[in-house]
Amino acid sequence: MSSLAANHFNGGCLWKYQVSKVGKFRIRATWMASSSTPAQSMEFGEGKTNKLRIGVLGASGYTGSEIIRLLRNHPHFQITLMTADRKAGQSIESVFPHLVTQDLPNLVAVKDADFSAVDAVFCCLPHGTTQEIIKSLPTNLKIVDLSADFRLQDIAEYEEWYGQPHKATALQKEAVYGLTEISRKEIQSARLVANPGCYPTSVQLPLIPLIKSNLIEVRNIIIDSKSGVSGAGRGAKEANLYTEIAEGIHSYGITRHRHVPEIEQGLSEAANSKVTVSFTPHLMPMSRGMQSTIYVEMAPGVTTQDLKDHLGNYYEHEEFVVLLKNKEVPHTRHVRGSNYCLMNVFPDRIPGRAIIISVIDNLVKGASGQALQNLNLMMGIPENLGLSCLPLFP
Amino acid sequence: MSSLAANHFNGGCLWKYQVSKVGKFRIRATWMASSSTPAQSMEFGEGKTNKLRIGVLGASGYTGSEIIRLLRNHPHFQITLMTADRKAGQSIESVFPHLVTQDLPNLVAVKDADFSAVDAVFCCLPHGTTQEIIKSLPTNLKIVDLSADFRLQDIAEYEEWYGQPHKATALQKEAVYGLTEISRKEIQSARLVANPGCYPTSVQLPLIPLIKSNLIEVRNIIIDSKSGVSGAGRGAKEANLYTEIAEGIHSYGITRHRHVPEIEQGLSEAANSKVTVSFTPHLMPMSRGMQSTIYVEMAPGVTTQDLKDHLGNYYEHEEFVVLLKNKEVPHTRHVRGSNYCLMNVFPDRIPGRAIIISVIDNLVKGASGQALQNLNLMMGIPENLGLSCLPLFP
Amino acid sequence: MSSLAANHFNGGCLWKYQVSKVGKFRIRATWMASSSTPAQSMEFGEGKTNKLRIGVLGASGYTGSEIIRLLRNHPHFQITLMTADRKAGQSIESVFPHLVTQDLPNLVAVKDADFSAVDAVFCCLPHGTTQEIIKSLPTNLKIVDLSADFRLQDIAEYEEWYGQPHKATALQKEAVYGLTEISRKEIQSARLVANPGCYPTSVQLPLIPLIKSNLIEVRNIIIDSKSGVSGAGRGAKEANLYTEIAEGIHSYGITRHRHVPEIEQGLSEAANSKVTVSFTPHLMPMSRGMQSTIYVEMAPGVTTQDLKDHLGNYYEHEEFVVLLKNKEVPHTRHVRGSNYCLMNVFPDRIPGRAIIISVIDNLVKGASGQALQNLNLMMGIPENLGLSCLPLFP
Amino acid sequence: MSSLAANHFNGGCLWKYQVSKVGKFRIRATWMASSSTPAQSMEFGEGKTNKLRIGVLGASGYTGSEIIRLLRNHPHFQITLMTADRKAGQSIESVFPHLVTQDLPNLVAVKDADFSAVDAVFCCLPHGTTQEIIKSLPTNLKIVDLSADFRLQDIAEYEEWYGQPHKATALQKEAVYGLTEISRKEIQSARLVANPGCYPTSVQLPLIPLIKSNLIEVRNIIIDSKSGVSGAGRGAKEANLYTEIAEGIHSYGITRHRHVPEIEQGLSEAANSKVTVSFTPHLMPMSRGMQSTIYVEMAPGVTTQDLKDHLGNYYEHEEFVVLLKNKEVPHTRHVRGSNYCLMNVFPDRIPGRAIIISVIDNLVKGASGQALQNLNLMMGIPENLGLSCLPLFP
Repeated sequence: MSSLAANHFNGGCLWKYQVSKVGKFRIRATWMASSSTPAQSMEFGEGKTNKLRIGVLGASGYTGSEIIRLLRNHPHFQITLMTADRKAGQSIESVFPHLVTQDLPNLVAVKDADFSAVDAVFCCLPHGTTQEIIKSLPTNLKIVDLSADFRLQDIAEYEEWYGQPHKATALQKEAVYGLTEISRKEIQSARLVANPGCYPTSVQLPLIPLIKSNLIEVRNIIIDSKSGVSGAGRGAKEANLYTEIAEGIHSYGITRHRHVPEIEQGLSEAANSKVTVSFTPHLMPMSRGMQSTIYVEMAPGVTTQDLKDHLGNYYEHEEFVVLLKNKEVPHTRHVRGSNYCLMNVFPDRIPGRAIIISVIDNLVKGASGQALQNLNLMMGIPENLGLSCLPLFP
Repeated sequence: MSSLAANHFNGGCLWKYQVSKVGKFRIRATWMASSSTPAQSMEFGEGKTNKLRIGVLGASGYTGSEIIRLLRNHPHFQITLMTADRKAGQSIESVFPHLVTQDLPNLVAVKDADFSAVDAVFCCLPHGTTQEIIKSLPTNLKIVDLSADFRLQDIAEYEEWYGQPHKATALQKEAVYGLTEISRKEIQSARLVANPGCYPTSVQLPLIPLIKSNLIEVRNIIIDSKSGVSGAGRGAKEANLYTEIAEGIHSYGITRHRHVPEIEQGLSEAANSKVTVSFTPHLMPMSRGMQSTIYVEMAPGVTTQDLKDHLGNYYEHEEFVVLLKNKEVPHTRHVRGSNYCLMNVFPDRIPGRAIIISVIDNLVKGASGQALQNLNLMMGIPENLGLSCLPLFP
Repeated sequence: MSSLAANHFNGGCLWKYQVSKVGKFRIRATWMASSSTPAQSMEFGEGKTNKLRIGVLGASGYTGSEIIRLLRNHPHFQITLMTADRKAGQSIESVFPHLVTQDLPNLVAVKDADFSAVDAVFCCLPHGTTQEIIKSLPTNLKIVDLSADFRLQDIAEYEEWYGQPHKATALQKEAVYGLTEISRKEIQSARLVANPGCYPTSVQLPLIPLIKSNLIEVRNIIIDSKSGVSGAGRGAKEANLYTEIAEGIHSYGITRHRHVPEIEQGLSEAANSKVTVSFTPHLMPMSRGMQSTIYVEMAPGVTTQDLKDHLGNYYEHEEFVVLLKNKEVPHTRHVRGSNYCLMNVFPDRIPGRAIIISVIDNLVKGASGQALQNLNLMMGIPENLGLSCLPLFP
Repeated sequence: MSSLAANHFNGGCLWKYQVSKVGKFRIRATWMASSSTPAQSMEFGEGKTNKLRIGVLGASGYTGSEIIRLLRNHPHFQITLMTADRKAGQSIESVFPHLVTQDLPNLVAVKDADFSAVDAVFCCLPHGTTQEIIKSLPTNLKIVDLSADFRLQDIAEYEEWYGQPHKATALQKEAVYGLTEISRKEIQSARLVANPGCYPTSVQLPLIPLIKSNLIEVRNIIIDSKSGVSGAGRGAKEANLYTEIAEGIHSYGITRHRHVPEIEQGLSEAANSKVTVSFTPHLMPMSRGMQSTIYVEMAPGVTTQDLKDHLGNYYEHEEFVVLLKNKEVPHTRHVRGSNYCLMNVFPDRIPGRAIIISVIDNLVKGASGQALQNLNLMMGIPENLGLSCLPLFP
């Protein structure tokens, strides 16, 4: 199955049509080298469908429904399996009425799922349970896991932050960390991708290129992040009631948020040394959106223009990561519902310091959108398929 | 130009691919009879582009930016002209930063626009000025007008409600009222379509079929409508500040809203007699969404099940108008960002009465989405092109 | 204890100071006739406190915390007992951190409460359990019950709408329905007051005077109500999460809401005949606030000005019920956090019909504020004590 | 007039009643030493009123209406003059309908105001115009100025940040900076108080005591602040429309916000050396509320517990500044509508660093509440009068 892309997507100028839809100067051409084509994939799946068959595990949560939304406009993926243990037997529209117009299979329990009838799965389950379920899946399946279970390479660190030993250590070694623009090559050949957390995505996209090039100091990186409430999931908690969230803000999990080790892992790898960050997340009265305001010390002699130039060059050919021009300030509302990450760099009043701001939609680039981008890559098709929706504003 | 569709879209099984993406039981087949094809349209436009060239007049408002958002995923329309008199010379991203990733022409003043270089226009200008601008356009252009200027067939009524005489009475006679599902046939052959108002769309879609079939009385129709704030446009008004809108609601324009004559025109035509309605709009603390809760008396002997059955049959093959099953209640959030209209019928406690609820996104089915649906029809292409985005939830 | 007011509040010019704080033309003079005075109440409570000792049963919900907020500025009431079974032993600030600055007793379980140490209680418990707890209280306590348990005079109706037989039928007979401005006299001498529901308060305040005077027909009364989310309480429910409520609206409990029999009871009593109403509540994306838009037929020959005049006269001397002037539209945000009910009457387009709009804060005039107003009355002190906070805007 | 307090408020145990309403351990006793009493003030104002006569200049903005709201419950202040140049001649309820129940004078133009008939004024005018108006006021008036015009002691700095020379430099020298808890003594004897900005209030209250005691380093202080939209005032700006603010966040005025020099002035004075801070404000989708998340380096050997202990001691007897216990996190919603500032200190992951969080209601402690607290002080009456409203939650 890891050769599925090669087998089923042989060639095609057809793709050129897709590429022409890409904006301004951002064109991803990696798939062009591929000899695969959707034309042949028509025969795939016992003739019943000409699309790849996708399973969504944990379809009753927000990242699950977001996958469904995005796949609605995907030319080659079709959802044929959806699981939700506590909602097994129900239609998706009884769980997510906004999907009432879609023709989708009913929800089933994971234990009753027929995994021989899918080609790839998005795993949107809670951490902990995820490990064992993924361990039990047929090894020919491509998997993008949206939980935290395979993000931390260091098993000991996983146990420390998640309070339980890891139960699939072999798989952990195989998993590729799926920060698409940073690890595209590894993702293309991966079978199991650990999709990054939302905060780590918003923080690492701007910082990793700067750290790799030694443009900023790795000490005293202060990250003040702000997130919409959908990041907390759909579980019924008093703290997330409308009345408890609207018209107010607060910090939470100060320095103890579970995304800390993930952020530090990425930055440490870029720095080739252990990086410890200050990370304070804040809950915002909005459903979607995430901003990280990052306060850094620049390396001696470096200017904010140097940071801008470097990020501009680094992401020049990327469709989804955009460095804003001049002093334009990224707003979360300008990426709502889309897979974009907008960022910019600003001089600080304190000499030698810079302020870096990045924004994403936590459910898209911060979860399901990046997951789809990754599966596209793993399947050898253009990574922007299904991700062409513009931000919904206002 | 009215034969453009025939000339440029000759035939094609290619469309079958599009149809297969349509949901469950909703398939629009009207275009299949057409002999037109996008294949030939490739030659259109002096070889520079293989898409139809679209102008957006008034691109700096919310309906304008919504047209741009929707066209992003349209396979055959391409925006080549955008006007905004007070923002002339600016890039669209300086006006709508969420469009920063798009490669679009700069804004120009209407007076400087080259209308020979477009095939069709969406007119998103304020009422009043619209008439004269449309009057001056080349007559080979297809036009969908989102203002109120051509909605009222009775010129006297226009003058009464809008406080000024109509200045394009001949055009008014030519204009077709674009409530798509009700007047599809007339729209297909129209050159100028008056796109319905948001409230009238939400009210007429459920009521016209019921009135036509004499299932409800046309006296004492009580309409209690609720709208998101984007309906008020992007103009800087104290009354629409965040601080003045958030966490509170109020009625406005009670019985005097300018959508009243438009609603009554549509219902009267269906009833073949003058209908006077009670209409009270309410402003909601939300950007998008509209609900009409409609209280009606049923004709003698009619039951709410009769109403449901009739609406179910009437819209059975429609993609965008959906009668919910059983007692499921339409929510505005379940259509946010999409072109859907969800509706349902409920028995009242008072014998002989029924409660009808419909919801739309005021900027999509209530404005730019229906406008695109109409232009698709006018061009002889599948009416759902560019409208495939699912609701953004949460 | 039922004679407490007479014993402990003998006279006093002291009160004149209070009255002078009342706004424009609204002065409540009923208590002036009373011979009671807070001066004597200084001796009350074994000398430990010179205030009446108040218990709040169910202090961990929103109506409970709202009572606490209001009593903060009450000159004669002091909270000495608070119960919350599931939070027993906790401080109030651990449950409601916004009360961190207050010096209040810890929460106890109802079964452990010492009711001999309080003079009156607000009962903020869920319906069903309330009956038995109130039945068990010492009979010298004054009680304002905010649940639905004692609102319906007809025990059979209670059983029908609440699905269980009433367990305190004798108490039910004693209970006085506490719509303050309508039943002030009965409330003054009551021991147990059933505090009205929020919807019934917003509906009955405008309608009862009009029905009593035969100014409107009692058939076909259409009530379209809109409520903030706090009305649903603090229970953790998926449906009330921020993500499920923000930026969208929907109807619920269409014609089947449990406030229907309460509304019909009040209107029927005013009409001296059985009234059946159409009642459709809607959930709004706001924490507080309630509007009822009421569509009525006027009696033959009656005009909307007649309705206005009558309501104006009826509430002329009321502090908390205000008929707006001219065509001014009530907004829920203009009563937020206050005990006011604003209302106005508008002519309908359909001859012979009128539109009545009333707004309240569902947690204040619709719950805890009216409860306090009632207990003030029951104690023979000015009914506006503790209720002087102006609306919080914006 | 500066001796008004002494003349008109001669002593009184009456005040003890006020004090008993103060919460837990917070009692302000400064006024007790005073021999003044409201009893004598009864004769004040030519017998017409027994209260001090207050003018509100600029009553049509949010800080103006907030002053009005707070004074509603003030026992000794009565508004007798309100100005609003562009609304001159109108009633306050036509500008702020939530004040419809209040008996207040109509708005007049500043030039028509009779300043001989007031004892003190709150000046809620825009910066720039404020200077000249205050310069023209009778010198016996007590003045609290809520604009920025008298906050900066350095006239050159004012000119640099506000782009115009200062026009009342003599008055500037007289003005006392009104951060109540820090400068109480100076405020008590001031005639003109420059009320602090909202951001500077939230930042200086926690930082000044720590800097004064050398517990934190004054280099690299990183301030990430978040504000509700009411801080932007009631002016009609596209950027502050509901549709442009709801469901999204963004930074603004990065390092260039005009509150920067005010913050640095206060911190520099505490440090006895020039302090330069990093300050980034963010706009939140909420009407009220402000949080400052402050990242600091501790002095060698200092622990976060030391910071907590010091702040706890420093504010131990303050009613309105509250250090939370343990790890409790301040939420803006827990101070909404109240004059409280909640704060707490948290250890950072990076050794030697601490995270300090403070929250206020930007319109109360950040503007009108602190202004009233100051005028109370200037008048020699208990500084908490009129400020007893608890936070409105939810």
